[in-house]
Amino acid sequence: MMAQPFDLSGWSRVRLERVERALERWVTADVPQGLDHGAPAELVEAMRYAVLDGGKRLRPLLVMAAFEAVAGPGDSSGAEAALREGSEAALRAACAVELIHAYSLVHDDMPCMDNDVLRRGKPTVHVQFGEASALLAGDALQALAFELLTPTDGTVDPVVQARLCALLARAAGSAGMAGGQAIDLASVGQRLSEHQLREMHQAKTGALLQGSVVMGAQCGKPDATALRALDAYGAAIGLAFQVVDDILDVTADSATLGKTAGKDADNDKPTYVSLMGLERSRAYAQQLLAEALAALDGSGLPDTQALRGLADMVVNRAS
Amino acid sequence: MMAQPFDLSGWSRVRLERVERALERWVTADVPQGLDHGAPAELVEAMRYAVLDGGKRLRPLLVMAAFEAVAGPGDSSGAEAALREGSEAALRAACAVELIHAYSLVHDDMPCMDNDVLRRGKPTVHVQFGEASALLAGDALQALAFELLTPTDGTVDPVVQARLCALLARAAGSAGMAGGQAIDLASVGQRLSEHQLREMHQAKTGALLQGSVVMGAQCGKPDATALRALDAYGAAIGLAFQVVDDILDVTADSATLGKTAGKDADNDKPTYVSLMGLERSRAYAQQLLAEALAALDGSGLPDTQALRGLADMVVNRAS
Repeated sequence: MMAQPFDLSGWSRVRLERVERALERWVTADVPQGLDHGAPAELVEAMRYAVLDGGKRLRPLLVMAAFEAVAGPGDSSGAEAALREGSEAALRAACAVELIHAYSLVHDDMPCMDNDVLRRGKPTVHVQFGEASALLAGDALQALAFELLTPTDGTVDPVVQARLCALLARAAGSAGMAGGQAIDLASVGQRLSEHQLREMHQAKTGALLQGSVVMGAQCGKPDATALRALDAYGAAIGLAFQVVDDILDVTADSATLGKTAGKDADNDKPTYVSLMGLERSRAYAQQLLAEALAALDGSGLPDTQALRGLADMVVNRAS
Repeated sequence: MMAQPFDLSGWSRVRLERVERALERWVTADVPQGLDHGAPAELVEAMRYAVLDGGKRLRPLLVMAAFEAVAGPGDSSGAEAALREGSEAALRAACAVELIHAYSLVHDDMPCMDNDVLRRGKPTVHVQFGEASALLAGDALQALAFELLTPTDGTVDPVVQARLCALLARAAGSAGMAGGQAIDLASVGQRLSEHQLREMHQAKTGALLQGSVVMGAQCGKPDATALRALDAYGAAIGLAFQVVDDILDVTADSATLGKTAGKDADNDKPTYVSLMGLERSRAYAQQLLAEALAALDGSGLPDTQALRGLADMVVNRAS
């Protein structure tokens, strides 16, 4: 299996088709379970605009890759049913982390935050739908993430549901993504130490990326060694992602990024580049990649090629 | 037991002390489980300002009353352990619904929504901390609600955790509270039918009140008859709450309400009073109270006095 080169783009294409189909189906005004009236069309339109047809879907791919690394490929040994259940849980987790990511972008782009008008090459949600709708769409996307994790139709083990909700809530909340954004906000014009910068980025971006990996793993019922290794892998690429983001903010142009380049420097935000310079930042990203791959080496998991490919993609991406 | 008059305020005081202590402990920068760094102090300060020391705590009281109606008082028949576990779950659910309510007020008060500067007699969160912090504090409070529902220390049955998350996500989301707010937003200056107005209020306010009742019930493992009755009770008082809110908006003053009175009329928002007049609105509220009490009569539950008292309080409150 290790002999032939791994086709990451082929692997990703198949998973992304499932994720896109699922998001298309789940971010909708039809509410099959729960309340007897559906969601209002205007709100759902803004939610769909924020989520569908855009983004690299890195977080969903991390969920799927971690799940498959733990659960292995389907076999005929009678584990098929458990695999199917885990696969449904992983698909829901993949969509849930993307909804959290999407809501954070909607709120982050608002005038009172980054005041950005361009996202993924399109007008941001508040530009397109107004600020109040953007605020509510973000709020509703966060709730929908937890709704996806808790189907009431018996397709996902409640123990797994509870664990996934626990992980997502902590990754998204005040000690995770929202907390990181608060530190980011307070840090404008401040001089941070490398330690403080890492804390900020670990929370702001790292927590949800790491959470994606661990949530995917939990859908496959991992052993302790594998879980610890995947947690370390997630921490390393979570931080690497932000280091590379800081590098791209100064080296890429807006068209390539699909968002406004050079904003961090313009806003006098502390970044890895401003702290350690471009060359040391690049070397640090490569070091984090090596750490992520080393963690996989110690995982005891037979096939981690997709996780390896995604780590490489995070660090060596151009946008 | 039915012979002596029920002391609602005494009953409430004991429950509220537990809830306030729990909120004080849980809305904090200390994160005992999960990420290894805590939440940033500025963010937590805004979250605490939004949650602590204010509000009638109606939703937590509904959770506790529904739980106790289903679980009954503690006894010595060996059911103590289950009761304690349910009680822990109910306390967490009580705090979680209050966090969702608090976050919705923070976001609702923001300039792009209702642009209100006064809440519970204090400056609103964005006035006190700035808009960006208000946005993030609201976001983090929503995540924290789900964090509270999913303790990883074994104190709450994962099956109950999953069910509570499912109920809360649906009550808060696009077909519940956030959806109702979106309809509310779109309805300014519109003429709504009574049916449309009811739909809006059921989602905006009713879903979380009804959800509070059902979540409390689920902590006590109710039978189908009791669950159906409590669901109907929750629906009736959820709607009644909003009808009374509309009445108070025109009959009470700002000092009594702790928020700006007369705003709905000023903003040309459709209300029960504008639709059916003051007298018919009052009669409708009393009719909903009768429906709520009738639902309890059919619940098969021996002691529903706290739920009865709370329903009466909702309809006959002065603020």
